[in-house]
Amino acid sequence: MTTGLVIGRFQPFHKGHIHAIEYVRKNVDKIIIGVGSALDSHTLNNPFTAAERIEMILIAIKEMGWTLSDFLIIPIPDAPYHKEWVSIVESIVPHFDVVYSNDPLTKILFMEEGYTVKDIPLLEREHYSGEEFRKRVIEGENWREIVTEKVAKYLEEHGLIKRLIELTKTDKPFQKEI
Amino acid sequence: MTTGLVIGRFQPFHKGHIHAIEYVRKNVDKIIIGVGSALDSHTLNNPFTAAERIEMILIAIKEMGWTLSDFLIIPIPDAPYHKEWVSIVESIVPHFDVVYSNDPLTKILFMEEGYTVKDIPLLEREHYSGEEFRKRVIEGENWREIVTEKVAKYLEEHGLIKRLIELTKTDKPFQKEI
Amino acid sequence: MTTGLVIGRFQPFHKGHIHAIEYVRKNVDKIIIGVGSALDSHTLNNPFTAAERIEMILIAIKEMGWTLSDFLIIPIPDAPYHKEWVSIVESIVPHFDVVYSNDPLTKILFMEEGYTVKDIPLLEREHYSGEEFRKRVIEGENWREIVTEKVAKYLEEHGLIKRLIELTKTDKPFQKEI
Amino acid sequence: MTTGLVIGRFQPFHKGHIHAIEYVRKNVDKIIIGVGSALDSHTLNNPFTAAERIEMILIAIKEMGWTLSDFLIIPIPDAPYHKEWVSIVESIVPHFDVVYSNDPLTKILFMEEGYTVKDIPLLEREHYSGEEFRKRVIEGENWREIVTEKVAKYLEEHGLIKRLIELTKTDKPFQKEI
Amino acid sequence: MTTGLVIGRFQPFHKGHIHAIEYVRKNVDKIIIGVGSALDSHTLNNPFTAAERIEMILIAIKEMGWTLSDFLIIPIPDAPYHKEWVSIVESIVPHFDVVYSNDPLTKILFMEEGYTVKDIPLLEREHYSGEEFRKRVIEGENWREIVTEKVAKYLEEHGLIKRLIELTKTDKPFQKEI
Amino acid sequence: MTTGLVIGRFQPFHKGHIHAIEYVRKNVDKIIIGVGSALDSHTLNNPFTAAERIEMILIAIKEMGWTLSDFLIIPIPDAPYHKEWVSIVESIVPHFDVVYSNDPLTKILFMEEGYTVKDIPLLEREHYSGEEFRKRVIEGENWREIVTEKVAKYLEEHGLIKRLIELTKTDKPFQKEI
Repeated sequence: MTTGLVIGRFQPFHKGHIHAIEYVRKNVDKIIIGVGSALDSHTLNNPFTAAERIEMILIAIKEMGWTLSDFLIIPIPDAPYHKEWVSIVESIVPHFDVVYSNDPLTKILFMEEGYTVKDIPLLEREHYSGEEFRKRVIEGENWREIVTEKVAKYLEEHGLIKRLIELTKTDKPFQKEI
Repeated sequence: MTTGLVIGRFQPFHKGHIHAIEYVRKNVDKIIIGVGSALDSHTLNNPFTAAERIEMILIAIKEMGWTLSDFLIIPIPDAPYHKEWVSIVESIVPHFDVVYSNDPLTKILFMEEGYTVKDIPLLEREHYSGEEFRKRVIEGENWREIVTEKVAKYLEEHGLIKRLIELTKTDKPFQKEI
Repeated sequence: MTTGLVIGRFQPFHKGHIHAIEYVRKNVDKIIIGVGSALDSHTLNNPFTAAERIEMILIAIKEMGWTLSDFLIIPIPDAPYHKEWVSIVESIVPHFDVVYSNDPLTKILFMEEGYTVKDIPLLEREHYSGEEFRKRVIEGENWREIVTEKVAKYLEEHGLIKRLIELTKTDKPFQKEI
Repeated sequence: MTTGLVIGRFQPFHKGHIHAIEYVRKNVDKIIIGVGSALDSHTLNNPFTAAERIEMILIAIKEMGWTLSDFLIIPIPDAPYHKEWVSIVESIVPHFDVVYSNDPLTKILFMEEGYTVKDIPLLEREHYSGEEFRKRVIEGENWREIVTEKVAKYLEEHGLIKRLIELTKTDKPFQKEI
Repeated sequence: MTTGLVIGRFQPFHKGHIHAIEYVRKNVDKIIIGVGSALDSHTLNNPFTAAERIEMILIAIKEMGWTLSDFLIIPIPDAPYHKEWVSIVESIVPHFDVVYSNDPLTKILFMEEGYTVKDIPLLEREHYSGEEFRKRVIEGENWREIVTEKVAKYLEEHGLIKRLIELTKTDKPFQKEI
Repeated sequence: MTTGLVIGRFQPFHKGHIHAIEYVRKNVDKIIIGVGSALDSHTLNNPFTAAERIEMILIAIKEMGWTLSDFLIIPIPDAPYHKEWVSIVESIVPHFDVVYSNDPLTKILFMEEGYTVKDIPLLEREHYSGEEFRKRVIEGENWREIVTEKVAKYLEEHGLIKRLIELTKTDKPFQKEI
């Protein structure tokens, strides 16, 4: 039995991620979804909490008809320094055989520690990315087509689209000037 | 549908925890197991990593014949200060309706933030506790009866009993004098 | 008796802040001034220490003829993560009834925790802002009119204008290349 | 005009502190009360938050009929390492001429940085100390005579005596075993 | 006997640094090389670990025929806040008489604590800087002439040029989106 | 050429350490002395700063007539969590072939990462240990025979014996009650 670790920030969990996981499922028996930058939230790049991102992943797994028990979802906090990050992953993520990632930094860090890292074929990255999603929300464009129907509903009903729009009005990470 | 959050350090996951989860299962539809002090390991009180503890929980769930998809297992890091801890839990643990805990500090912190906290009837705490387990390992007594058969096997095969014994030989958290 | 919490970074304490506090004073009996990013200093955005900022606030309170005992001045450190920030504020700031702030992030964070947050009518923000002050100092323009006379004097006599100018010569937060 | 910095943890603010401040008031014009370990709370040694401790100090100042505007109350977080602590104090506490403390570590750290540190004559330390207060609460003895009447009332009405008693039931800083 | 402290990040250790140290050697008996941002690595601005940077410094000292025992090489971690940084330097760097630096922030911080800080005549900074080196590597230009022959060899043989190129492909400090 | 890493806290650097290094010198060409808990100081277990400990090591190397250029002295900060500690060591310590240590925790952590760890024959540990040194200073017994003559002189002339005695008068790590 092989286990694949798929690491992302999932801000939000979108159709590109679904495409990626469909691909990984064909290659491994069990998938651990590592929710990166887990303690970050309420910033332009990381608007949603890990709790909210995990809710979206659970919604999408159900929506896709995948078997929930094939998955393990683990929030992964950032390390103070990159060199320590893999040891933090090892510390909280159960055994995995291969890491799936397209991010150069993730790949470098795992490969320097001797791990097997594999690329994931992307689904039209220009359309299906967290960056594109956040851009569309902020500019009032159609963000709904980037996520599944049920995830879109979750985002709206929990005020998360509104939060993201509000966050754009502050231009500094912790600007609190009156 | 109600969700219960059961928080513990699970050093290791023992029969007392199994008894507790049997009880909680009767009262809620879904259980989130929060693995506390998630980044701690290699100390006398927290010998095992969160990765190892999650492995034990998965082994026990299977051994007990429980439905894996009824569970969510979330490692929870400690907060720098107690007052921030509940906000960290809220930040990474998906929605829950009730907290199950017998620990006074956990109870105070959640209750001061307005949560419902319920006690769990314990199974002979003098026999089934992490403290008792660690004491028996260190003193060479019978620790096997405290955990399930498969968890005992996991602990031995991964050198974790040996690690705990070695850790007793250092009496300070980071004593490294030559 | 109602207490209002006014949070800012006060880099420096300028006439816009004085205008804001004049407004808040009419609506509450007691004002707690929360000095945000309290441990930050010696950067372009946060050039002055909290100690220096509190000195400026005390000078301005006296200069304005306000009653010192109507105020409480509390330095507030940043949180590692936004989600924990309100719990840090609650941890060190005595009871308050309402938060006054125009910053979207501050407002989101407090409102998500159930607090009442009110806007403050701003005094010509294009002229009276910390950003404008720092810009003018760096470009050698008239920064004196942005702060009160006594605060200007304090800034000069303690070498703080000179510090800010020097800080512009380093373009990275901790560039120390020789 | 001379300013004295009086540093304590004030867990809680008791009659020994009142006696100390009476003494310091005769020697300086202005007193800065530095509330140490400001972010700590909910432990046996530091049961109360800085917010709660500041409330007690304000209550006692009023109760004693002292002039509030003679005081500045500044919460001071701990440093990661002792050697950095004085620089943190300098960073957030406005100008002071002399430090009042009887604690050997506080005295060493300030003196090694060149500060003048003075002792405070203590009021029957065996009766009036935070340690004695916490001991009496836990053992059900008379803790009321250690604090002023109004501070005692505050402690009771805000559930703080109850919290301290509950905290004794957990013997580890973050024990959360079920 | 006088000791000079030369602080840099040495990303990488290049000919400009060699020129600087040649200059400092004429003015002091002993040189302490402080390797700043010591725990940072795997970022565009700080691609190399302190371990790797110290290796380069040792290689260059040998290559230049300098006396190794005239040097002490001390990695210096960043402080959480600038105001604490000098106390961290004092905490881990043995006695020094003078600081050599051209960086405005380093100079401000040391001078505010009463230290003597001296400038270093630079060797054509537009050619010999870490920034220029990293730019050339990324743009495929001649980076070899910026460092010594042996340092160039070290960088290539340990895969560090390759790492830097890979790092440019991630545009966020911890972007890990799939 | 082989390099040995000798890790200790060196509180203070005593004759037991000298004995250990004499032994290691016979087995390797180059010794890296890793000064652990580098940022700790001013506590009963870690009274001296890394700067002071490095001074002592330099004094002892000279006193013993060892070749300074055979050594590299690297201060090593503690990790937030044990599991990250080896990655911090790798991040700041140049290449080493073997670790010399008698401390069980150090040995476990390095061995779990695949390193070769060797024991060091100890010199009458009951007499030559940092713990014994600190005990004797505090109890007014003969601590001089535990360190070399020149290290003893350094400790006295820099007020470090006096600091250690003062530190015993505070019984909590950060007790600052007045």
